[in-house]
Amino acid sequence: MSFDKLLQQLSFIQEIDKLKYIKRKTRLFNSDRHENDAEHSWHLALMAMVLAEHANEPVDVSKVVKMLLIHDIVEIDSGDVFLFDTLLNHDDATAEHKAALRIFGLLPEEQSKEFLTIWEEFEARETPESRFAHAIDRFEPVLQNVSNQGGSWKEFNVDYEKVIKKVGVIDKGSNHIWDFAKTMIDDSLEKGYIQKPELPQE
Amino acid sequence: MSFDKLLQQLSFIQEIDKLKYIKRKTRLFNSDRHENDAEHSWHLALMAMVLAEHANEPVDVSKVVKMLLIHDIVEIDSGDVFLFDTLLNHDDATAEHKAALRIFGLLPEEQSKEFLTIWEEFEARETPESRFAHAIDRFEPVLQNVSNQGGSWKEFNVDYEKVIKKVGVIDKGSNHIWDFAKTMIDDSLEKGYIQKPELPQE
Repeated sequence: MSFDKLLQQLSFIQEIDKLKYIKRKTRLFNSDRHENDAEHSWHLALMAMVLAEHANEPVDVSKVVKMLLIHDIVEIDSGDVFLFDTLLNHDDATAEHKAALRIFGLLPEEQSKEFLTIWEEFEARETPESRFAHAIDRFEPVLQNVSNQGGSWKEFNVDYEKVIKKVGVIDKGSNHIWDFAKTMIDDSLEKGYIQKPELPQE
Repeated sequence: MSFDKLLQQLSFIQEIDKLKYIKRKTRLFNSDRHENDAEHSWHLALMAMVLAEHANEPVDVSKVVKMLLIHDIVEIDSGDVFLFDTLLNHDDATAEHKAALRIFGLLPEEQSKEFLTIWEEFEARETPESRFAHAIDRFEPVLQNVSNQGGSWKEFNVDYEKVIKKVGVIDKGSNHIWDFAKTMIDDSLEKGYIQKPELPQE
């Protein structure tokens, strides 16, 4: 009896333990404690299970769940990228792809391909599942930031226009969730959790 | 447009954030840091995706993943129960059922029933999916404890017989994974990570 294949799979399973150390900018609900990528991925998977009926198009929920469970694994190598940090966006995509090749590459070949394919589908945002997965990924920090009186929006002085532009991606996965998120964001502007955009100088 | 249903679902989504504060006895790989229930659940779901081929019977992987994502949510109310703490086992089942009714009961009725049903299936261990899910749940701490030179086995003086008895449940979900886990446990006894059972007094 050989354990070779199992051992190869376990090298991946041990490697991804590191995701529990990757800290996000956002904090838990009503809390000062930063969220880590592993518990974040768990929460998103549950959100997808519960909120799937609100997707714009019918989605294969199991696929969305799988996408969300693996979507941040690349950050073990490339680190958490703050949604509102636009300067990093380009280099980041390359670094993340390299990370995906290394980490999913620890798996036996067939599984490695399977995981890479689903991660690439998530990144490309061209299928109903990936659009809905992205909507969920953007929605969670809205809920957390509102519970924390502005949270990372306030901490990093993110203005209203930037929030609407970045978080508005929710609309592509779920109009209904976006309509709701928009009311939360507008309310946050009124309460001063989000700053008004600077007016252009006359 | 009404947000009533969404708001009800969000009350559940916010409530389960608390799972991130429930600390387990085991620690992360090669680490002093205790694992929390949310990141634990994430890790198990990934393990099930990767290791499904080793299940004794063919399993619906998506169902196993869902089971593992929700299996510990009851611990928000009932707390983490250490596998080797046998005194607590009975009361614990009642407390956990009450917790399941309260927490899954936050969801709209149909979803509440769906989540309760899958959690009860996990607990009953009568289907291939629930037996494999339990196998995965028992296997992760073996890997962690071995990486930590004994980890919670050593910390709480758990003896070899007790480990074999409790962790042996893996065999019901996967003979192959159990065969491997058994070699790790035997090796741990040899290395002194696990103590020998006390000999009966003459």
